[in-house]
Amino acid sequence: MVGKLLGPEIREMISQRDFTSLRSVFTDWSIPDLAEVLSDLEVEEQVIFFRVLPHTTAAETFEYLDVETQTDLLHAMGQEQVVGILNEMSADDRTALLEELPANVVSQLLRLLTPEERTVAQTLLNYPEESVGRLMTPDFIAVPEDWTVSEVLDYIRKHGHASETLNVIYVVDAMGNLVNDVRISEFLIKPIHSVVGNLQGHQITPLKVTDLQNHAVMQFKKYDRSALPVVDSEDKLVGIVTVDDILDVVEEQNTEDIQKLGGMQALDDPYLDVSLLAMVRKRAVWLMVLFLGQTVTASIMGYYEKEISTAVVLALFVPLIISSGGNSGSQATTLVIRAMALGEVTLDDWWQVMKREIQAGICLGALLGALGLLRITVWSAFSSEYGEHWFLVGLTITFALLGVVIWGTLCGAMLPFLLKKMGLDPATSSAPFVATLVDVTGLVIYFSVAILLLRGTLL
Amino acid sequence: MVGKLLGPEIREMISQRDFTSLRSVFTDWSIPDLAEVLSDLEVEEQVIFFRVLPHTTAAETFEYLDVETQTDLLHAMGQEQVVGILNEMSADDRTALLEELPANVVSQLLRLLTPEERTVAQTLLNYPEESVGRLMTPDFIAVPEDWTVSEVLDYIRKHGHASETLNVIYVVDAMGNLVNDVRISEFLIKPIHSVVGNLQGHQITPLKVTDLQNHAVMQFKKYDRSALPVVDSEDKLVGIVTVDDILDVVEEQNTEDIQKLGGMQALDDPYLDVSLLAMVRKRAVWLMVLFLGQTVTASIMGYYEKEISTAVVLALFVPLIISSGGNSGSQATTLVIRAMALGEVTLDDWWQVMKREIQAGICLGALLGALGLLRITVWSAFSSEYGEHWFLVGLTITFALLGVVIWGTLCGAMLPFLLKKMGLDPATSSAPFVATLVDVTGLVIYFSVAILLLRGTLL
Repeated sequence: MVGKLLGPEIREMISQRDFTSLRSVFTDWSIPDLAEVLSDLEVEEQVIFFRVLPHTTAAETFEYLDVETQTDLLHAMGQEQVVGILNEMSADDRTALLEELPANVVSQLLRLLTPEERTVAQTLLNYPEESVGRLMTPDFIAVPEDWTVSEVLDYIRKHGHASETLNVIYVVDAMGNLVNDVRISEFLIKPIHSVVGNLQGHQITPLKVTDLQNHAVMQFKKYDRSALPVVDSEDKLVGIVTVDDILDVVEEQNTEDIQKLGGMQALDDPYLDVSLLAMVRKRAVWLMVLFLGQTVTASIMGYYEKEISTAVVLALFVPLIISSGGNSGSQATTLVIRAMALGEVTLDDWWQVMKREIQAGICLGALLGALGLLRITVWSAFSSEYGEHWFLVGLTITFALLGVVIWGTLCGAMLPFLLKKMGLDPATSSAPFVATLVDVTGLVIYFSVAILLLRGTLL
Repeated sequence: MVGKLLGPEIREMISQRDFTSLRSVFTDWSIPDLAEVLSDLEVEEQVIFFRVLPHTTAAETFEYLDVETQTDLLHAMGQEQVVGILNEMSADDRTALLEELPANVVSQLLRLLTPEERTVAQTLLNYPEESVGRLMTPDFIAVPEDWTVSEVLDYIRKHGHASETLNVIYVVDAMGNLVNDVRISEFLIKPIHSVVGNLQGHQITPLKVTDLQNHAVMQFKKYDRSALPVVDSEDKLVGIVTVDDILDVVEEQNTEDIQKLGGMQALDDPYLDVSLLAMVRKRAVWLMVLFLGQTVTASIMGYYEKEISTAVVLALFVPLIISSGGNSGSQATTLVIRAMALGEVTLDDWWQVMKREIQAGICLGALLGALGLLRITVWSAFSSEYGEHWFLVGLTITFALLGVVIWGTLCGAMLPFLLKKMGLDPATSSAPFVATLVDVTGLVIYFSVAILLLRGTLL
């Protein structure tokens, strides 16, 4: 809110080179607010503003900008400015920026870092994408077991600036192995001469650098912590992950899942920031795959062409039948994929889910079948559109709906299990994908029922 | 993990009434781990275990259980045990439990609280559902401006136990109005004689008790904090919201959105915990609405019955045409709904989104149209299924696809705006809903193109 209001004022100060007023802005405002306003300015204005900011404030503000704005700024800033910001940035935010840049830019930027920071940055970038290593920061406070609370407080007062968070203090042994994880709240309420090693922490299973970020999300949900420790393969404490980064991971993962469920590849950037070309490409791939799948329906319809021309009334209900199968499949697949993403359902539950979905499919199919019969009965009372055999047509629709809905529900529920079992992302089993699959088989069900029930009368 | 392994052991201890070993479990284990194991036990075993736990540990462990387990436990526990736990629970978790219970149970439980806790609980429950008030806890540390760091540390050591988090210290004036919000990290690194009022905090716009929880999520994403202050209508500091609750809100909202996108009402509980009846009901409503919408397709098909019986070949492509419209609509609606949920797109952006989606629709429609023409041309080289006028049929399919995809994309993109403008939840514009809408209109587009192109030849 602040942002929208004061953008023009800042613009004014910048164009008038009124550095004194500019300085007052960054002392009065919180950094996230500052970042919000900055992101609405032109890149040249941003560069000027950043020149006025003190080193640490500049780096902190820079961290709150989105990666696109950051990239533009890096291009527009002088080398000295870039050096200042990159070296001051917190290591996890720097990784998030670097991993989005092309390799040659990354190596240029790494050369601008101090040897110390360069080692940190390279180590973090060496962890696999989507791993906890890419999320963590090595800036935490670790203290030996034999210190007292008062010694730790003194230590924090001297060295705390460098830590990403002081919400948790880590206790390590002489080898650097994690011994305890003490929340600052448990720590501050203890007498100042208590020995740290005796404090009752909660021995939390630490994250591993190679863990998937998704695992980290689950752990944060379980432990309700603002930070969790990360250890390497030798159980040495190497970093921490903070919950603000987890919040971003959660939203990103959800966005990906939702976009996949909608039947497309996940966009990597906000909707309005993606170029038209990139967006069309992400959508066209799946749309074409689905289209090619759907052309099978034309062949199936062609196979039953004789029946259709004999009883045109059958063609009238094709959209109704196949979409009912598609909709029930879409519901089932959505439920199962989400339950899997939340860890509520695992591969081992397939049998339980199958039983449930068959039951649900029977209920829903019977319901829609009854509705279909009702529709045709009522319609036939006023019109002769469905001919003298309208009741048989009605029964055909009813049984076809029952079959198609059960089948759609079952396919939708089981496909995510099959994909996961094959090591693929269950979210690929999108609603449109299931609908296409069910359309094809649904037609076969429909015409088979029709041939069975209408032979000798309409067919 | 710990849970799955040690459940049987705990069961053994309980059945043998081996309270000494049980006690060692809760001193060695972290509370979230304890809660994980407990939730796999029978309710009678849980009650016994809770009897062994000290008061505060019992309440803390209880907080980590899900609402269903909590409810079962409340029913199974003796009144004294319930009194102990409810009074010790942190206020925000208690609200989350109470808001799920029927009114008569809530009033019974409220009577068990101490007068002090009862006031707190009632106040929180009086805030509207989905409001920040329902999420917050009144247990925070607030200090006057003129205290020194050292005075605050002494105060925390005495009164910190009661606070939900010590990650942020709130500075208030004599009226109880929020003056500053100082992270513990900024606080601990200052000399101990610094006066609190002089510390540079980040003046963060506080949440209001009546704000929507969704707004709180946005603020947490913006400010990267582990807790945010909440003020009442008179700007008095009345509580704080912690990020662990926000993580739960985010996941819950995403689950709701995903389930709505899948074409059903949101389930309120995990998939496997919902009864079959409740689940069928949540799914049947939308399935029936969509079905009734789809019956319109039968009427439209009936309207074109003469054309279909003259040129049966037209019927063959009905599923292909309408599903292409549905799929492109489903992509567009998914993208827009998600962008809205993340705040990337607001109502004011409708024109920009419309321009984009028309362009995307043209590209995607042209692509599918070309694919369709190719399919028919290739097929006709080997088969006479589509008759002598196969090229005209091919052109009909091509133009129909172009029209249907553009129309589907546009409907899918604009419907969420329309719903939001009308004050409804944009996520109601689910993929199946858009597909049904586009199926109906898509048929009209298809047959209109056919009549236009095939009159005099096939029709």
